[in-house]
Amino acid sequence: MWPVECIEHKRDGNILTKIEIDRFIQDYTNGTIADYQAAAWLMAVFLRGMNARETTDLTMAMAHSGDLVDLSSIPGIKVDKHSTGGIADTTTLIVAPLVAAAGVPVAKMSGRGLGFTGGTVDKLESIPGFHIELSEQQFLRQVRSIGIAVIGQSAEIAAADKLLYALRDATGTVESMPLIASSIMSKKIAAGADAIVLDVKYGDGAFMKTKENARRLAHTMVEIGTLAGRPTRAVVTSMEAPLGTAIGNSLEIDEAVEALAGKGGRRLMEVVSAIGAQMLIVGGKAADEAEGRKKIEELVRSGRGLAKFAEFVKAQGGSTAWIGKRPLTKASQVFTAVCTDVGCITEIHGRALGDIAMSMGAGRARKEDAIDPMVGIRLFKELYDEVRPGEPLFTIYGKADADMTAIAQKIAGHIIVTPSQAAQMEPVVSEMIF
Amino acid sequence: MWPVECIEHKRDGNILTKIEIDRFIQDYTNGTIADYQAAAWLMAVFLRGMNARETTDLTMAMAHSGDLVDLSSIPGIKVDKHSTGGIADTTTLIVAPLVAAAGVPVAKMSGRGLGFTGGTVDKLESIPGFHIELSEQQFLRQVRSIGIAVIGQSAEIAAADKLLYALRDATGTVESMPLIASSIMSKKIAAGADAIVLDVKYGDGAFMKTKENARRLAHTMVEIGTLAGRPTRAVVTSMEAPLGTAIGNSLEIDEAVEALAGKGGRRLMEVVSAIGAQMLIVGGKAADEAEGRKKIEELVRSGRGLAKFAEFVKAQGGSTAWIGKRPLTKASQVFTAVCTDVGCITEIHGRALGDIAMSMGAGRARKEDAIDPMVGIRLFKELYDEVRPGEPLFTIYGKADADMTAIAQKIAGHIIVTPSQAAQMEPVVSEMIF
Repeated sequence: MWPVECIEHKRDGNILTKIEIDRFIQDYTNGTIADYQAAAWLMAVFLRGMNARETTDLTMAMAHSGDLVDLSSIPGIKVDKHSTGGIADTTTLIVAPLVAAAGVPVAKMSGRGLGFTGGTVDKLESIPGFHIELSEQQFLRQVRSIGIAVIGQSAEIAAADKLLYALRDATGTVESMPLIASSIMSKKIAAGADAIVLDVKYGDGAFMKTKENARRLAHTMVEIGTLAGRPTRAVVTSMEAPLGTAIGNSLEIDEAVEALAGKGGRRLMEVVSAIGAQMLIVGGKAADEAEGRKKIEELVRSGRGLAKFAEFVKAQGGSTAWIGKRPLTKASQVFTAVCTDVGCITEIHGRALGDIAMSMGAGRARKEDAIDPMVGIRLFKELYDEVRPGEPLFTIYGKADADMTAIAQKIAGHIIVTPSQAAQMEPVVSEMIF
Repeated sequence: MWPVECIEHKRDGNILTKIEIDRFIQDYTNGTIADYQAAAWLMAVFLRGMNARETTDLTMAMAHSGDLVDLSSIPGIKVDKHSTGGIADTTTLIVAPLVAAAGVPVAKMSGRGLGFTGGTVDKLESIPGFHIELSEQQFLRQVRSIGIAVIGQSAEIAAADKLLYALRDATGTVESMPLIASSIMSKKIAAGADAIVLDVKYGDGAFMKTKENARRLAHTMVEIGTLAGRPTRAVVTSMEAPLGTAIGNSLEIDEAVEALAGKGGRRLMEVVSAIGAQMLIVGGKAADEAEGRKKIEELVRSGRGLAKFAEFVKAQGGSTAWIGKRPLTKASQVFTAVCTDVGCITEIHGRALGDIAMSMGAGRARKEDAIDPMVGIRLFKELYDEVRPGEPLFTIYGKADADMTAIAQKIAGHIIVTPSQAAQMEPVVSEMIF
């Protein structure tokens, strides 16, 4: 008896047919299947798994459960980029204008963040005047004219995923490879890009705690994209420490602008270069990784990336007068902590710093929370840097009523300085998967 | 975060604590835990299992989620009997008056049936005037005065089980050993008996399809009863063919009366003897199985069991004028089919006959369906009997508008006669577990 038989099939470890998966997702989206039935099914999927074909069918069923964005009026290969999320990760803000400057159209739908800091949409909204709500016509016209636009993700994209995601959160079924992969890929496919480049992060500050799980997720998503006819590549990167140095919405815009001006940190630029190269390859603008990386470097050096960023901000109504002149961030209280030790930074606890930034007002614990775009943490050093006593270690930007000394003390406990250098310096980009 | 952490614990294969189980059941019963969370938890329990301690804790938590019946005002060891359900199973109607006649008090709560035919309550209600709705005071008084009473199961018994059972039915989580065992035992324990004898059936017409699963379920329930301080014994019996010869509510009353009058079938009486002996043992009225079986035989031969049945029916307002004089069943249409073959009956498809009886009106497909107490099937032969052409094979009792020929044809296809005798005659009682 439908839908119990479908739950039982997966419960007993069978492979579900495309017809079963399509019908289950359709019936759940239209309310014929109850939440409690979907919950039992999710737990069965969690414990029994899904093969690549099932996961792809689930992805496509969810992609088709809501609006499908049609980017066909934009010439060229539209490339989307997605990160599984981390701390101080401004890659999208840097890489999108760089590849757009190289002629790869970027028509991006982006979400608001839940957690440490805001999402790309929240970060962009910290720029005075910037608006994220474009009509579909405005959105497509802007990509056609300047090669780049970012809008907020419509609630109607992958409707089933939205319902299932909330249910997974309440039923202990979040950390499932096929469910995570299909959730991400359904939204990417519905958003209409021709090709997709994924940044799959692992470590303390990432959703995937181990490199092995990140690799498995990356392989799963690449397989889905390929089976769905959307060439997909993935970069597996470390989130054992914050990627960049800024944690907080306007602070991350500042870091992105600095990076586009050639002053990006070592780790951040390594990821920008890796992902940018892959986007140029799938976008048909580079033959291989070496050529891709070289082009990305040239686009930074020439200032064309920064110019594209300014053009993009202006097109969406944002102020650009500050770019290249002064930081965007202006907070009520600013406090800089200096280093007291000598040695090498061997650990930066990204997750803990993210939690502190969130408690300062940079992120949302719940969907309805408001973000303060100007608060956050800016590090002066990154992982594996050497430090000496008296050097500035970090600056915090706080609300008027924040206890800056207490916050600084907390942060200091999460930046570990060791007299000798780290035994093993782990590369930030560990693998490309395609 | 509660209750997600409890779902995750079971999902990850951990053993839940008594505190977790108690809280989960309490919170689900009072509505704090949503159906979808309970559904995910049930699927995790289904796939990860529960050990004996967890299953007992779950049983006790469900038993305490509703009313607890207090039988302490009745002297003696009150013994309850439960069958996991089968076709043509009138054991309760026969064994309860037999053991009551031997001095073991039977204070029984019984359910209405869903499936092939009615439950014990439905069968008793086919006796004119019989009423099943006694007050608690009337119920206890009747057991104290004549040693036996049967009432309908209160909705307030094991409230959590009622909720969970409906949820399991809709979420593909019915066939789980700990969930089945705790569902049955929670109701038995809440119903207040001091000791419990279980008839766990296997085969085509039973809930458990294999003997091995029936044995596992029996062991699990015996373990729960023992851990809960209610001595519990189980008999594992075959439901590869109907147990008796009557399928239909008043027809089964007729068969029970015949059995109490010493004219019971071989297979039925074997189960009556086995279960009756165990009930006498746990009730302190027999030292061992041999003595118990002998007492049961004497109670039948002496007519004391039948007299107790009549006393019981009369006490609950039922007509007794027909007992020993004429059958209770009187249907609009009666049709007898005769045998055309010679040989041995090697198969009787109980499940199929049950479905036919249900479609004739003897059982309920849905809770709200009405039962016709007078319709059904009566076989003249049982499994392994020899047959000759011209001998009556079965009689059907139908509603006025029933197509008797078509029904008879369908039934005939499910009674398989083989020229030679069955290679292997399987005993109906395969094991005692305690």
